Amino acid sequence: MVSVAIMGHGVVGSGVAEILTTHKNKLFASLGEELYIKYILDLREFPDSPLADRFTKNFDDIINDIDVRVVIEVMGGLNPAYDYVKRCLLSGKSVVTSNKELVAAHGAELLSIAKDNNANFLFEASVGGGIPIIRPINQCLVANNVSEIAGILNGTTNFILTKMINEGMEFDVALKLAQDLGYAERNPEADVEGHDACRKICILASLAFGKHIYPDAVHTEGITKITLDDVKYAEIWGGVIKLIGKVKRLENNKCDILVAPMFVPNKSQLANIDDVFNGIMVRGDCTGDVVFYGKGAGKLPTASAVVADIVDCAKHLKNRKYLFWTDSDNSSVIDYKDSVTAMYIRAIADDTKAAYTKAEELFKDIHILSKDDAKQGEIAFICEPLAYGEIEKNIDTLNNSGIKVESAIRVGDL
Amino acid sequence: MVSVAIMGHGVVGSGVAEILTTHKNKLFASLGEELYIKYILDLREFPDSPLADRFTKNFDDIINDIDVRVVIEVMGGLNPAYDYVKRCLLSGKSVVTSNKELVAAHGAELLSIAKDNNANFLFEASVGGGIPIIRPINQCLVANNVSEIAGILNGTTNFILTKMINEGMEFDVALKLAQDLGYAERNPEADVEGHDACRKICILASLAFGKHIYPDAVHTEGITKITLDDVKYAEIWGGVIKLIGKVKRLENNKCDILVAPMFVPNKSQLANIDDVFNGIMVRGDCTGDVVFYGKGAGKLPTASAVVADIVDCAKHLKNRKYLFWTDSDNSSVIDYKDSVTAMYIRAIADDTKAAYTKAEELFKDIHILSKDDAKQGEIAFICEPLAYGEIEKNIDTLNNSGIKVESAIRVGDL
Repeated sequence: MVSVAIMGHGVVGSGVAEILTTHKNKLFASLGEELYIKYILDLREFPDSPLADRFTKNFDDIINDIDVRVVIEVMGGLNPAYDYVKRCLLSGKSVVTSNKELVAAHGAELLSIAKDNNANFLFEASVGGGIPIIRPINQCLVANNVSEIAGILNGTTNFILTKMINEGMEFDVALKLAQDLGYAERNPEADVEGHDACRKICILASLAFGKHIYPDAVHTEGITKITLDDVKYAEIWGGVIKLIGKVKRLENNKCDILVAPMFVPNKSQLANIDDVFNGIMVRGDCTGDVVFYGKGAGKLPTASAVVADIVDCAKHLKNRKYLFWTDSDNSSVIDYKDSVTAMYIRAIADDTKAAYTKAEELFKDIHILSKDDAKQGEIAFICEPLAYGEIEKNIDTLNNSGIKVESAIRVGDL
Repeated sequence: MVSVAIMGHGVVGSGVAEILTTHKNKLFASLGEELYIKYILDLREFPDSPLADRFTKNFDDIINDIDVRVVIEVMGGLNPAYDYVKRCLLSGKSVVTSNKELVAAHGAELLSIAKDNNANFLFEASVGGGIPIIRPINQCLVANNVSEIAGILNGTTNFILTKMINEGMEFDVALKLAQDLGYAERNPEADVEGHDACRKICILASLAFGKHIYPDAVHTEGITKITLDDVKYAEIWGGVIKLIGKVKRLENNKCDILVAPMFVPNKSQLANIDDVFNGIMVRGDCTGDVVFYGKGAGKLPTASAVVADIVDCAKHLKNRKYLFWTDSDNSSVIDYKDSVTAMYIRAIADDTKAAYTKAEELFKDIHILSKDDAKQGEIAFICEPLAYGEIEKNIDTLNNSGIKVESAIRVGDL
């Protein structure tokens, strides 16, 4: 019997308790012994829970119980999760978490503490919910140098964009619907401004490249400024707009990483990933492109990834030395202004012909996009790949020439 | 240092040797020690190989060397692979293989021998080439009851079908092209008749359901009878024709498994998997649908999956008790005639109106498909889900009524 403690009884935590109960026999068959929930830490009362006798409000019950070998952190947020997880690892207990904020902020330190204390720190559920991604990158693709990872990492924004694309819904209306359906928080900032996707691409980048990349080093744009006009121009171009988290290893071994909405061509495997689903493309030098698709969030998908990690910890109570990356000062990340990208630009001008001439002068090669119901004076085009800093300068020049740029969205090389 | 032996120096074997050489540092970093190729078994001479001094023609060199802890079987075929693998496992050496024929024919026995001798028998590369699939199903989805697996498991047939769909190429022409490009063998039977896909779905089914399912229990149809008319009718219906390997757990815990071409709706994640790519959908009760996509064959993709297994074996020289299924007598597999499916049927009749009336009488609900350039007397329709045996009887009745059925293809519920 392996005793575990679950910290947090919210959506994911209650899902973990549910799966450990409903899938008891299957898990026993795989593990060869029972997984026993000894404690559930939550400040709230759950008198009607079948596990009511396991609840505690006191973290000390868990940290002081040498029986508890695996602790599951599903509280979310940094405090007190960070402190609790650290203390568990320091005392040699393995920790499983779904907390992307925690891993993105303190992953290197916690992995190092886990190693030093012969314990495991696993977080399959922190990226892609129920989609297997951490273990496949780490184990199955171990014989590859990963050159690039790009993914739709946030289900809420993908739901909103899907509604805009397929049903012509305005952003605000789609956001409201996502909130009504429980896909988006009342304060949707972490999703729609890209912060959630940023934490996830940081975790994947750290894993693939072996050095911690912190969220504050990653240029992050959300989807709040995207209009139905942009969606339509993407369609005319032959694609869709998706919020993409992307990291690419450059020839100098530096790392080009960002989160931003992008034009994705219809032929890309990422173009067809709709609604709350996530999809992650990993490019290895031996495998080529591998794509993982599934539900990136939700109670049972996320909880099932947590439980897979619990089984792994229970099978290997000592540190497996599989999952590890070192700390870093973010110096491997290039300035986002140096990142080279093609760009879609939409603007309003008094004289569209003169505006296109000006755009051609600035950007050299441009590909004009024509829309039947374009607004008076509207121009739209794709420019050839250029450093983002140069594109910004050119946009300033356009604005200063009376050509008001309303939208600028990267064209993903996906 | 962990010494390994590679049996076979063909496409995959030379790829394994290449990756172990070119990715030495990365593998060392992951494993913490060196992987040393002590022997390469091949009857041919490779005097110009940088590893020329490691070649042997004698299996005894490998089996008698206690230094060799991991043996890689990439010879293909059943003989002598089966005998060699068995003897390696009996002597406590772990074995990694990419040989789907071997795993599909003897997996249960070899897993059992591995367990009894405290060794590992791993075969990530046997399904999906470079796509992580065995380990994700086995480890990441351990907290799920898998209810269904469906996949495009053979790259050669997917290439041929893609050419038929996208370029209107006839089957024979597309097959010839596949042969010219090296995607298809001169004797293409194993691919185009579905045998290769059959072995792979057997491996996945055995893994997911814990009992060995042997290829001879699986109804298997190939793609040789598919015409461009069928491709066109699939498009009119709203989908594409794909060769699908599929296994579904029924309510009585029996198993509905087959390999056959199917109509796949455009909205399915499997519809957009083109060319030589593979895609595998796994439906879990907690995760929902998860899809894995990538190159299902090829030297380096397959070899990289083999090397990931070698690293796993080298990290865990004793049996990990992860990967296991028991032997079975195939009694859990239902007769393919009892398998319920919707069906597309195309026929030629003297009187199309009377033919549709007859079809409606036999199949109750039918959905007629109309094609502008239909041949004289051609009818085409989709029938509602029905046991396959009943469909066959109805097709006989149509034929006996002078309505000549030219094509019948399952409609995949994907």
